Amino acid sequence: MFGQMQNWPLLVSKFLDHAAINHPSREVFSMLPEGGEFRYNYAGLSDRSKKCAQALGRLGVTLGDRVATLAWNTHRHMEIWYGASGMGAVTHTVNPRLFPEQLVYILNHAEDKVLMLDITFVPLIEKIAEHLTTVKQYIILVGRDHMPDTSLPNALCYEELLAAEGGTYEWPVFDENTACSLCYTSGTTGNPKGVLYSHRSNFLHTLLALSGDTLGITALSVILPVVPMFHANAWGIPYSATAAGAKLVLNGPHHDPETLHMLMIREGITTTAAVPTIWMGMLKYLTATGKDCGKMETVTIGGSAAPRSMIAAFQERYGVRVNHAWGMTETSPLGSLGSENAAVQGLTPEQKLDVQCKQGRSVMGVEMSIQDEEGNKLPRDGKTSGRLMVRGPWVIDSYFKSETSALEADNWFDTGDVALIDEYGYMQITDRSKDVIKSGGEWISSIDLENAAVAHPNVLEAAVIGVFHPKWDERPLLIIVPEAGKSVTHEEMTEFLSDKVAKWWLPDATVLVTELPHTATGKISKLTLREQFKDYKLPLA
Amino acid sequence: MFGQMQNWPLLVSKFLDHAAINHPSREVFSMLPEGGEFRYNYAGLSDRSKKCAQALGRLGVTLGDRVATLAWNTHRHMEIWYGASGMGAVTHTVNPRLFPEQLVYILNHAEDKVLMLDITFVPLIEKIAEHLTTVKQYIILVGRDHMPDTSLPNALCYEELLAAEGGTYEWPVFDENTACSLCYTSGTTGNPKGVLYSHRSNFLHTLLALSGDTLGITALSVILPVVPMFHANAWGIPYSATAAGAKLVLNGPHHDPETLHMLMIREGITTTAAVPTIWMGMLKYLTATGKDCGKMETVTIGGSAAPRSMIAAFQERYGVRVNHAWGMTETSPLGSLGSENAAVQGLTPEQKLDVQCKQGRSVMGVEMSIQDEEGNKLPRDGKTSGRLMVRGPWVIDSYFKSETSALEADNWFDTGDVALIDEYGYMQITDRSKDVIKSGGEWISSIDLENAAVAHPNVLEAAVIGVFHPKWDERPLLIIVPEAGKSVTHEEMTEFLSDKVAKWWLPDATVLVTELPHTATGKISKLTLREQFKDYKLPLA
Ligand SMILES: Nc1ncnc2c1ncn2[C@@H]1O[C@H](COP(=O)(O)OP(=O)(O)OP(=O)(O)O)[C@@H](O)[C@H]1O
Ligand SMILES: Nc1ncnc2c1ncn2[C@@H]1O[C@H](COP(=O)(O)OP(=O)(O)OP(=O)(O)O)[C@@H](O)[C@H]1O
Ligand SMILES: [Mg+2]
Ligand SMILES: [Mg+2]
Repeated sequence: MFGQMQNWPLLVSKFLDHAAINHPSREVFSMLPEGGEFRYNYAGLSDRSKKCAQALGRLGVTLGDRVATLAWNTHRHMEIWYGASGMGAVTHTVNPRLFPEQLVYILNHAEDKVLMLDITFVPLIEKIAEHLTTVKQYIILVGRDHMPDTSLPNALCYEELLAAEGGTYEWPVFDENTACSLCYTSGTTGNPKGVLYSHRSNFLHTLLALSGDTLGITALSVILPVVPMFHANAWGIPYSATAAGAKLVLNGPHHDPETLHMLMIREGITTTAAVPTIWMGMLKYLTATGKDCGKMETVTIGGSAAPRSMIAAFQERYGVRVNHAWGMTETSPLGSLGSENAAVQGLTPEQKLDVQCKQGRSVMGVEMSIQDEEGNKLPRDGKTSGRLMVRGPWVIDSYFKSETSALEADNWFDTGDVALIDEYGYMQITDRSKDVIKSGGEWISSIDLENAAVAHPNVLEAAVIGVFHPKWDERPLLIIVPEAGKSVTHEEMTEFLSDKVAKWWLPDATVLVTELPHTATGKISKLTLREQFKDYKLPLA
Repeated sequence: MFGQMQNWPLLVSKFLDHAAINHPSREVFSMLPEGGEFRYNYAGLSDRSKKCAQALGRLGVTLGDRVATLAWNTHRHMEIWYGASGMGAVTHTVNPRLFPEQLVYILNHAEDKVLMLDITFVPLIEKIAEHLTTVKQYIILVGRDHMPDTSLPNALCYEELLAAEGGTYEWPVFDENTACSLCYTSGTTGNPKGVLYSHRSNFLHTLLALSGDTLGITALSVILPVVPMFHANAWGIPYSATAAGAKLVLNGPHHDPETLHMLMIREGITTTAAVPTIWMGMLKYLTATGKDCGKMETVTIGGSAAPRSMIAAFQERYGVRVNHAWGMTETSPLGSLGSENAAVQGLTPEQKLDVQCKQGRSVMGVEMSIQDEEGNKLPRDGKTSGRLMVRGPWVIDSYFKSETSALEADNWFDTGDVALIDEYGYMQITDRSKDVIKSGGEWISSIDLENAAVAHPNVLEAAVIGVFHPKWDERPLLIIVPEAGKSVTHEEMTEFLSDKVAKWWLPDATVLVTELPHTATGKISKLTLREQFKDYKLPLA
């Protein structure tokens, strides 16, 4: 027997309709790649998103077509998110920081029909345009006065396209499982893989993001999603901000601490989200200038591990609560978040900080399990690490265009992360499975070693990879970028690490380099490192 | 093209699994109808809910069967909610305050197979049992030592049933549109009508309830849902508390201010929800005893209009924020809630209080429209009243066992309430359509008149109904229960009301009574009043 409630499909256009009706005058602010600023509101965003949908329709875009964006966080990018997805096409947010070959691979793999790009990226695309086999239409996200001279064939001007439309448009209604948006992983461990979100998965993820224990975005929030819209579904913020009627502040091409801080104060930001690198820069800026965080209440940090000192600084020095979050493109991305639960409520501030360094507790809707190689469930004892497996309505089923399931037995998705879950329910990433070092059949966590190593005053950045060893299969190699003008020896590092990790974890060698390779999302590329050091011979004892 | 995300059906058993895994030791406390108290946690609730499912299965309950409860808010009632719905049966929460004939009507209409009841209600059911045509099994919600002598045929003891089960049980997975629970409307305007919730509708409603702008329940919340589990889906709190891992405090059969206040302080309640009558009693108790509200942060008030003085008292005197909410059994019930949005943020405290007296802004997922009799949309101008129409995934499609849709054009459901929406987006109930008085083709709001009348110092309670008038069709009749030992004349009331409502709204007559009829949920029964006064002749001028 079925329930007798309404069949109301979960479509992302509902968020925009809700905001346009209930929060029409709530501000949406954007910095522009061509210079200057733009300010309107949800009534305006709704109106222009509809025009964008009309314009795309006129260009022949139809249900299921992929519309690629190569754009900063701007109001125009928001209009395309809603315009393309709302009309039933698929918004494909492309990461412009990928290598040109990766860009060609992704755009062709996605079979993007239209590519909408900021002027910033015109030179980049001009160079690869001849290799793009499916793109039929380029649209440049500016007004006529800023249209660049370009070799891109038949490039159209976004503002002109919109100006030609009336905006009288009702979002079509279709199956909630319809593809909504497409995002490729950041390519840290290999070639980026496409994740095809549905309207349903984005809708459910958004409702969850509004809960007080996750992002807690409300109608009174003023949110600056520093996380780029092309990175991991922008953590869902373009949807959740709209659904809540929060004021939305978009930083355009600017990621320098000075601009971000200016926005924070001038626009009255209460919450924001980004990877640790951004906040590292911000904290340095705050220290150097003696400025504070204005009305900021919370900052969500994820994408890679937030260092303890960063969490402490925000909370103790600036009174800003840190939400340490874990997720991945494949999980839309919210998987876990470090909001307090009753089990940790009574801990001391120091103990709480220990818990906050972990990656948080699984959000309602994401089931988590730690499993060994054979799929056996491991205990939640705060000690036993294993493969982090997840399941839920906004977790991937299969990669884009793949017909084989990405899941294991009982629908568990292997995240590729190695993690433990403690007795309070908090999950801690201890490694990525590809980065784990297997020494004599036992695991050594490269992350633990790196965290211990960066604490040395002369170490700026550190990475640990496993290299071949005739007896132990693999042994850890420590690769260090020293602080400017400083140095450090292998013996000093061994000495320094010896009371911080198990003896048999101590790296067999230490190498100094001037720079570590990073991926498009700012993570250390172990893949490249392993490539660089593949012929490295350990000094055998 | 479909998205490639997981097919993870939205089933309410997922809430319980989530709590059992992530918040196993979070407390669930219950007062007992047989006397005494019981305290366990989500691990325990999960375990016993599974045993309840096993026991029901052993009794022959299967997918789609209706399992009725006649019970207070207790841990056992929670176990049945999850046990019966989780196994695929339908939990039918019956309101014990209905008249015996209504009870017979509802239990037969629902075709309940099993009836699970607190000892409190054994005498009530014994009297009507011979008329219950479908109930095959009575289960009394106590242990053996409290089993009453009863004429109910073959009555079983709940605790014995559970003790016989092992609890090793995995919740079955089925279509999320499967019927989950059944609740009848409270019968204010006629016979109660059945609303058949699906797992999907309850799941979505729960995610929404967790958002900071609605109930905002988090893992740190300590919630006392005073609202009975048999009233309007208990406002979804049994689900949302579990989904958040909040501490749940259940008051059993006790609704007196003294017990509620004892729980509030002793258990550290942070949030609670009930109809205004309950809070009226609580405020009197607080004033009389000089006590405070302990750790209470918010109270959600709905079901009928929260008076301005009540909202002010909670906020100004006790520092407890009031969420004035509107909803109905047909809307699961969250439809609107008075959390602040940016448009009202800058208002003065008095103006904010004005806004809070309204019924709130529509929550994300419930679309609202004010329409005239012909279905034309009316402006959101804070002045124009019309039929309040709603739409959304937790709004009814058709009543239980009805094959005709309950919806109008474009899927709008007519709530039967008359309302306006102001320029800030806040909705205000001005009347129920059946209670509106039509004088010479124009509408007079009975609610406005009642609100104005109760402000008179000698008036305890007031109701206004329309009675026949030869010239104007209908004119308002004011029915008053005076304060103990006080009285009031028609002339005094006319004088008192004359600067508060339009002149042509002034009642044509005033009648004093000792008592007003109330429905099972504590609303004034206009239906009964109209019946009582159907032959009333207005003194014609
Ligand atoms: N708070 C965090 N702490 C540590 N690692 C994190 C955190 N949040 C995310 N990560 C890492 O980021 C990964 C998800 O990143 P993303 O989906 O952007 O692509 P990627 O995994 O870097 O790229 P690819 O899958 O293409 O190699 C997670 O699997 C995890 O390894
Ligand atoms: N905050 C509120 N202020 C005023 N009225 C409210 C409020 N909340 C709910 N109501 C009234 O309660 C109604 C919903 O009540 P419920 O679903 O329990 O059954 P009922 O309408 O009283 O009974 P029936 O439909 O059987 O006559 C709403 O339609 C509205 O009239
Ligand atoms: Mg990855
Ligand atoms: Mg009703």
